[in-house]
Amino acid sequence: MSKEITSRSQDYSQWYNDIVIKAGLADYSAVRGCMVIKPYGFGLWENMRDALDKMFKETGHVNAYFPLFVPKSLFEAEEKNAEGFAKECAVVTHYRLKADPDNKGKLIVDAEAKLEEELIVRPTSEAIIWNTYRDWIQSYRDLPILVNQWANVVRWEMRTRLFLRTAEFLWQEGHTAHATKEEAIVETKKMLEVYADFVENWMALPVIKGIKTPNERFAGAEDTYCIEALMQDGKALQAGTSHFLGQNFAKAFNVKFSDKDNKLEYVWATSWGVSTRLIGALVMAHSDDDGLVLPPKIAPLQVVIVPIYKGEEQKALINDKVKNIVSELKANGISVKYDDSDNARPGWKFAQYELQGVPVRLAIGARDLEANVIEVARRDTKEKKSVSIDGIGSYIQTLLNEIQQNIYNRAKAFQQAHITTVNNWDEFIKSLDEHTGFVSAHWDGTPETEEKIKELSKATIRCIPLDNVQEEGKCILTGKPSSQRVLFARAY
Amino acid sequence: MSKEITSRSQDYSQWYNDIVIKAGLADYSAVRGCMVIKPYGFGLWENMRDALDKMFKETGHVNAYFPLFVPKSLFEAEEKNAEGFAKECAVVTHYRLKADPDNKGKLIVDAEAKLEEELIVRPTSEAIIWNTYRDWIQSYRDLPILVNQWANVVRWEMRTRLFLRTAEFLWQEGHTAHATKEEAIVETKKMLEVYADFVENWMALPVIKGIKTPNERFAGAEDTYCIEALMQDGKALQAGTSHFLGQNFAKAFNVKFSDKDNKLEYVWATSWGVSTRLIGALVMAHSDDDGLVLPPKIAPLQVVIVPIYKGEEQKALINDKVKNIVSELKANGISVKYDDSDNARPGWKFAQYELQGVPVRLAIGARDLEANVIEVARRDTKEKKSVSIDGIGSYIQTLLNEIQQNIYNRAKAFQQAHITTVNNWDEFIKSLDEHTGFVSAHWDGTPETEEKIKELSKATIRCIPLDNVQEEGKCILTGKPSSQRVLFARAY
Repeated sequence: MSKEITSRSQDYSQWYNDIVIKAGLADYSAVRGCMVIKPYGFGLWENMRDALDKMFKETGHVNAYFPLFVPKSLFEAEEKNAEGFAKECAVVTHYRLKADPDNKGKLIVDAEAKLEEELIVRPTSEAIIWNTYRDWIQSYRDLPILVNQWANVVRWEMRTRLFLRTAEFLWQEGHTAHATKEEAIVETKKMLEVYADFVENWMALPVIKGIKTPNERFAGAEDTYCIEALMQDGKALQAGTSHFLGQNFAKAFNVKFSDKDNKLEYVWATSWGVSTRLIGALVMAHSDDDGLVLPPKIAPLQVVIVPIYKGEEQKALINDKVKNIVSELKANGISVKYDDSDNARPGWKFAQYELQGVPVRLAIGARDLEANVIEVARRDTKEKKSVSIDGIGSYIQTLLNEIQQNIYNRAKAFQQAHITTVNNWDEFIKSLDEHTGFVSAHWDGTPETEEKIKELSKATIRCIPLDNVQEEGKCILTGKPSSQRVLFARAY
Repeated sequence: MSKEITSRSQDYSQWYNDIVIKAGLADYSAVRGCMVIKPYGFGLWENMRDALDKMFKETGHVNAYFPLFVPKSLFEAEEKNAEGFAKECAVVTHYRLKADPDNKGKLIVDAEAKLEEELIVRPTSEAIIWNTYRDWIQSYRDLPILVNQWANVVRWEMRTRLFLRTAEFLWQEGHTAHATKEEAIVETKKMLEVYADFVENWMALPVIKGIKTPNERFAGAEDTYCIEALMQDGKALQAGTSHFLGQNFAKAFNVKFSDKDNKLEYVWATSWGVSTRLIGALVMAHSDDDGLVLPPKIAPLQVVIVPIYKGEEQKALINDKVKNIVSELKANGISVKYDDSDNARPGWKFAQYELQGVPVRLAIGARDLEANVIEVARRDTKEKKSVSIDGIGSYIQTLLNEIQQNIYNRAKAFQQAHITTVNNWDEFIKSLDEHTGFVSAHWDGTPETEEKIKELSKATIRCIPLDNVQEEGKCILTGKPSSQRVLFARAY
């Protein structure tokens, strides 16, 4: 195999990078912290985006587009939000370059083209959107507003990793406006369910739904709901968040509506987002030492067919047969590629498609033709099987569903095996160090203790699970009384 | 009608703005020169984008995503391209804000967080993409690369207009790499045909295909092909461009490949793009004094149904009937909305949907129910007709096709009536001033004369039509010999 990848046991982090780069998902760019999403990676993102977009529309949302730039005076209007993002934002200060008088062919910033007010490249769009909503909302009849935006955002991260943490990333951000607090909270929870549904049923990745502690809330939110996934190295990854923003942005941008009694009230808000980070989660959760493993429902390519032949005559016979197989698969709504290129041997092709995580590989040779069979190889289990060509379309359709389910089941079993309940500090540290994964433990509820635990263990409270049982216990660090367990983990 | 719009004869420019804003397509934002694309406008863009994206994929292209920022050193590498965009680019110079010590709650740029190298917000992506292609291309086997990107770009325009000219806009930019000059030229022309096909058959807007004069070429191109459309005020609008870039970018970024003889050669390039500007063209070409007129194939909503009733009993009966009509329309692949809201009278709704350019309006009252008919109103011709409810699905399907064709025919007739052939300067000016539209005239082929004509008449050479006849003549300005006519117009 030409493109070898590091094994997980050798270096998990390098294994991840190898897969992302060598499977052709993404690459580093000339711009610090920004990545190039390559066609195969973008095809994956398109499938994820389209599935999510459909779910947003089915829940009554529409798309719109707001400016890339946020004037500084708007950016700073909601103080907590501004404080949260000020340290990591790209700032546009000038609008023109000019020829460098000292360096022929080079350009310099034209000092005369300095902006009166600096523009922030959006790290998130609450500010610019709520400044706009002020014009859209007068009466309760204008509510709710259920808008989503697919966009690029920029957060100037110091340590970046492909997909997981990049200076620029692609995402969607929903921004909704409501007449009542209750309605906004319903919306916040509804979108969390949409995210959980998508990540579990499309990405085959089980999640834990929960609510963040005040320390871990989105800057400017009253409550942040989240879904947390588990990676194969036992670290958690926040896969999506849905925020109940209260009236914070309405107050910062003076967005009021007259209710049915003609009384002016501030509008209630939510925002929610998932990003290309999900691709990082997908890679880390399912892949193996041979490369990507992709759930069929979002794989850019579901089936590849590789011919095995000696001479043009055999190839022609195989081509003939495969033409029908391709039609039958396509008629079953399956995406398929027939790779009859002459520039690589079958074994090399097998390895390449394994690396790229194509869920099913079909191989067909002269003897298969005679027997009217084809070799079917599953990417998830590596099983191979000779299958009759008759009815291959529905066979593969069923197999793809089975693979989707199997990938989910495997990840679910891993997740379940990595939630450990502990009752004291020693067990807590031991579980984090040796067993890894989520640790369910009592915490006294104070931000100070949370901070101290993080400092000592490098684990954070991932969430308070939504379905949490109330039970009395003692904080693992301070011994103070606690009414419920929370989930800790080391995280991406 | 609550939202009155200025008539075309009164003030064409204001008419355009009124429609864009009052039909809910877009609005101004707090950021100079940037617009907010509202849900209805974005729905239109989504339909246009999806249709184009399908055509790109059918012609073998794939999508990818490249960074928003271009480091200055890459930006300036291709000199003509850099020169063309230097005067209008947003420059990021810092990556952090900090609390203003003199103003509580305010932020200022942190002078310590100055970038070593400034980043340009992409005005177009040739530079960042060709710098990436250097890593993607080694051998002829890596070619062609047929990549497209859907993205936002920023050009700091001094005078902006919603959709037509905004500082930030959405577009797609194709960037292809080829082993031979011939193949690159074939690609350039192929994509021009794709654009013409899309604009004519989806947007119902006839175009003239041509090639730009050197003066009007894209900065860095060897040849720029274009499609030119005509607006109702007789001004032309460049609707799309496809550039043959020669080896200019390959040389600037040192992108070479080894050919079949193992010889190193520079790669050949094309780029091509259309943008949200097309929405401006759509509005200006088809709409009337009552609002938008949208071709059914890209309308966000194709059919609206408005009930006309007195009392709840009548409404219930109508609702019952309409339920079946809605199902039948949907089964025919038609997008439909039933507006039974109580907060507006039918007349107000009629005007609103006319303003928004919904191609077909159905109205149904108690008497219609009895007669098993429904009133069908076409937006394009304003014709109304009572039609049997039986078979309404296929009736409307046929009608939508007819409307699509009629809108195209109308625009085509207008275009044909506004191409004038002239043979001297007086005729030229008279045609521009009084008849407007395209003027076909001889030109001596020099940039100086082209510039002088522009200065004197405010008309530019829109293109040399692809199907141009060669004929001898004399330049309308200098009287010098010319071998072919070119198309002039005043333009957006």
